[in-house]
Amino acid sequence: MSTPPLVTLADIESAAARIAGAVRRTPLVPTQLGHADAPLWLKAESLQLGGSFKLRGAANAVALLSDEERAHGVVTHSSGNHAQALARAARDAGIAVTIVMPTQAPAIKREATEALGATVVVVDISERAAVTEQIRAETGAVFVPPFDHPAIIAGQGTVGLEIADDLPDVATVWVPVSGGGLISGIAAALKALSPQVRVVGVEPELAGDLAEGFAAGHPVSWSSDRTGRTIADGLRVTAVGDLNWHHIRAHVDDVMTVSEDQIRAAMRSTIVEAKLVCEPSGAVAVAGYLAHADRVGRGPAVAVLSGGNVESSLLREVLD
Amino acid sequence: MSTPPLVTLADIESAAARIAGAVRRTPLVPTQLGHADAPLWLKAESLQLGGSFKLRGAANAVALLSDEERAHGVVTHSSGNHAQALARAARDAGIAVTIVMPTQAPAIKREATEALGATVVVVDISERAAVTEQIRAETGAVFVPPFDHPAIIAGQGTVGLEIADDLPDVATVWVPVSGGGLISGIAAALKALSPQVRVVGVEPELAGDLAEGFAAGHPVSWSSDRTGRTIADGLRVTAVGDLNWHHIRAHVDDVMTVSEDQIRAAMRSTIVEAKLVCEPSGAVAVAGYLAHADRVGRGPAVAVLSGGNVESSLLREVLD
Repeated sequence: MSTPPLVTLADIESAAARIAGAVRRTPLVPTQLGHADAPLWLKAESLQLGGSFKLRGAANAVALLSDEERAHGVVTHSSGNHAQALARAARDAGIAVTIVMPTQAPAIKREATEALGATVVVVDISERAAVTEQIRAETGAVFVPPFDHPAIIAGQGTVGLEIADDLPDVATVWVPVSGGGLISGIAAALKALSPQVRVVGVEPELAGDLAEGFAAGHPVSWSSDRTGRTIADGLRVTAVGDLNWHHIRAHVDDVMTVSEDQIRAAMRSTIVEAKLVCEPSGAVAVAGYLAHADRVGRGPAVAVLSGGNVESSLLREVLD
Repeated sequence: MSTPPLVTLADIESAAARIAGAVRRTPLVPTQLGHADAPLWLKAESLQLGGSFKLRGAANAVALLSDEERAHGVVTHSSGNHAQALARAARDAGIAVTIVMPTQAPAIKREATEALGATVVVVDISERAAVTEQIRAETGAVFVPPFDHPAIIAGQGTVGLEIADDLPDVATVWVPVSGGGLISGIAAALKALSPQVRVVGVEPELAGDLAEGFAAGHPVSWSSDRTGRTIADGLRVTAVGDLNWHHIRAHVDDVMTVSEDQIRAAMRSTIVEAKLVCEPSGAVAVAGYLAHADRVGRGPAVAVLSGGNVESSLLREVLD
């Protein structure tokens, strides 16, 4: 297949200017979790408004709507963090928003989305694309996808700009992968700013569709029955998006996987030692660093702590 | 009693320059915990090296030692965070350190102090001053007190400089109080920089010696049996120090107390909503804001999240 136009550094810098008033610039937190020759920082998107990086892309997509589009509102499907993000961005812009959410989504995420004023429709994960399309057709709402869209990729890429700004000599950036919006944007930004930076994607072994596809050289899709097994509820998407695939092929150096035990251990370390609350998906990049840093090389490392929306019961379980 | 010389803004600015390479500049994290007319930021000293603000004062005190004093090392008593801080500062300076620690100190704090290379001596809390003096007399080590010393106050005051720098229009700063080192330094810095800022001390009701003394107009001491009842193990000191008392009388606007339930609820909110891990003592200022902000007035508020060193078992219990 031919390569579509990729998101550029200029696109990401434009997105940063566009969303500056709507999102937080999150801190890059030094930690003692790392090896001496590859000290580890955490990009704490858990401290972003809404508790995850997702607001960056959603705010950028909403800011790019025409007046005509704004009148019809927006719709999306999401396992949770994109839902909250789009709900917040739509509320701030004063437009209607409907969220299609899978039954497996944690209650904390559904409640938070409703609290932001969104209409939430709960369906089986296998039906969410069809139901979203139905709502779009009936209401004229604009579909804002969670990851497979240049505006989303450019918005998430602002994470990469901030990493490069705060730690100019960064050598390796570890990024959790689900649909690929975050890693596409971060890699596009970093490779344009400093091509020597290594960008490594990390997935749960139980949702390792990109790791398999990256090794094979073509996109691979897993069933939701398979990806649904991981504790990392934000990473259960069954394949990266088309546009994301092309960014990953162009810019990402490697994709690695981690076990469920490694995810839980990384959550514990992040909470108890680095003092930052993280959801399982948010700990996956830390787990990747802890499991694989010796294969990647030396120098300052950043793991993107993508979100902190976790139910108390799961926190208690992981700390046990 | 006559007023001793108080720590000045210049002292605190000198301390900031002296310790800049040894401590982290911690983020001031915006939150959604606050009221609309008094939005709340958290000064996340939980993300400081060693997990609490205490390194600031300890590093300043160690940096001020003469070569002669360095040769004999340092000694202190502490319920934990000052211990780790002095151990780290001494290790970084290459000098010997002995810590006298009460039997009630959490295991996590004792182990962390030993891991930093300190000699730890565990005694009943009532004997710790006497044992510290005995070690000082026998070894010639310099006693670095936890709070009642101008070098410690100046070091902790660098927290105030950073708050004023990051949030110039701050209206109220909430600070947990134990021996008074942190609030003395913060108040000295802030009142010199912007006299209209309100500085409010917060104590557990079960260790409310300063609240009682502040209202009475003279220092009050409580028994360690009384102060030992609070979950906030960092705030069980039985009275503020002499020098601290004078700073508090000169600069602090009010001192308020919070219940044990309010401390636990503030821990939960800080962890689950603000995504920052805190120890019970670290949540006391947040609890003060949540309980009393309507009595204090409007405008941007900061609660000093003084530390994040908490055992997993207590985290689990509080999240239940």
